[in-house]
Amino acid sequence: MELIEEISGLTQLSKEAETFLVNSVQKIRFKKGDEILGIGENCNHLYFINKGIIRGYYFLETKEITNWFAQEKEFATCFYSFIAKKLSVESIGALEDCELIRIPYSALQELYARFPETERVGRIIMETYYLKLEERLLNIQFKSAKERYQNLMEFKPSIIRRAAMGQIASYLGITQETLSRIRAEI
Amino acid sequence: MELIEEISGLTQLSKEAETFLVNSVQKIRFKKGDEILGIGENCNHLYFINKGIIRGYYFLETKEITNWFAQEKEFATCFYSFIAKKLSVESIGALEDCELIRIPYSALQELYARFPETERVGRIIMETYYLKLEERLLNIQFKSAKERYQNLMEFKPSIIRRAAMGQIASYLGITQETLSRIRAEI
Repeated sequence: MELIEEISGLTQLSKEAETFLVNSVQKIRFKKGDEILGIGENCNHLYFINKGIIRGYYFLETKEITNWFAQEKEFATCFYSFIAKKLSVESIGALEDCELIRIPYSALQELYARFPETERVGRIIMETYYLKLEERLLNIQFKSAKERYQNLMEFKPSIIRRAAMGQIASYLGITQETLSRIRAEI
Repeated sequence: MELIEEISGLTQLSKEAETFLVNSVQKIRFKKGDEILGIGENCNHLYFINKGIIRGYYFLETKEITNWFAQEKEFATCFYSFIAKKLSVESIGALEDCELIRIPYSALQELYARFPETERVGRIIMETYYLKLEERLLNIQFKSAKERYQNLMEFKPSIIRRAAMGQIASYLGITQETLSRIRAEI
């Protein structure tokens, strides 16, 4: 199971913890365009992506803003709702047919409590997501539109292939027209 | 030691881990207005605040933007530099005479490795900071200037007492004029 491989790369997982985890998660499939989580819902699952690409997005007035993308071997959730137990302010949507593993919040808490070595995984996932969020903010504030796009091309070229232009533009904090111009220039 | 009390509230800390921690940290004092960390430096310490209030800030063109405030019993650092081991893009400054406990990065890594129960603390601190960052972002995008200020009054009134108007305004993503108007209205 790829989830177990991924976690084993972050911490030494005991056989008992592995069994508990395997028995606690569900495999779930979504079709391209499906909504995985809606705005105003409780986000009770942490997702691990076996196959496909998903995104988190919200609406600013009537404009749809893509907050993040996540693809194979990455964890994703609406962390704000998942951790703080508040209603989600973002939606999660499938950009392709996807196969996800979902870990219920309660199972994750039990995993942490019964197998403290797994706390390490929680810490590292949270650190990674903190950095992603801060990096995106810094990019939007300090980098030019062109630099942001070049960054994405360098570090996450698969997003450019797999996501729609409008999604990429709002993720980079630029208009679709600016994105088209930059792509023509490059 | 208040740091130990705080951590003990988050996890069961063994006597050995406590001794290791106490021997690894340093108490350090700063005067009001001192720079604790400069832009472009490596941030090698996690700070715990015994006394005082500090803030993280950066420059957007020539405008100073306050990114966060932290006060008694809170942890703070330039997480981006501290976790990713990149040069800091923000400064940390003391708003009052402060007494801080600083934990070196290397000591924290050793603490995690030798006493896995402390990973829980790392996870919870990171979750808290992720939420702070996301909440600030959401506030700036979705709430009116007045709502943001009322939020701060309700949840962090001490910041209003302890920080300068310009610092509060940039933290809320509004101009100082707007902040003055809101304060006059309330």
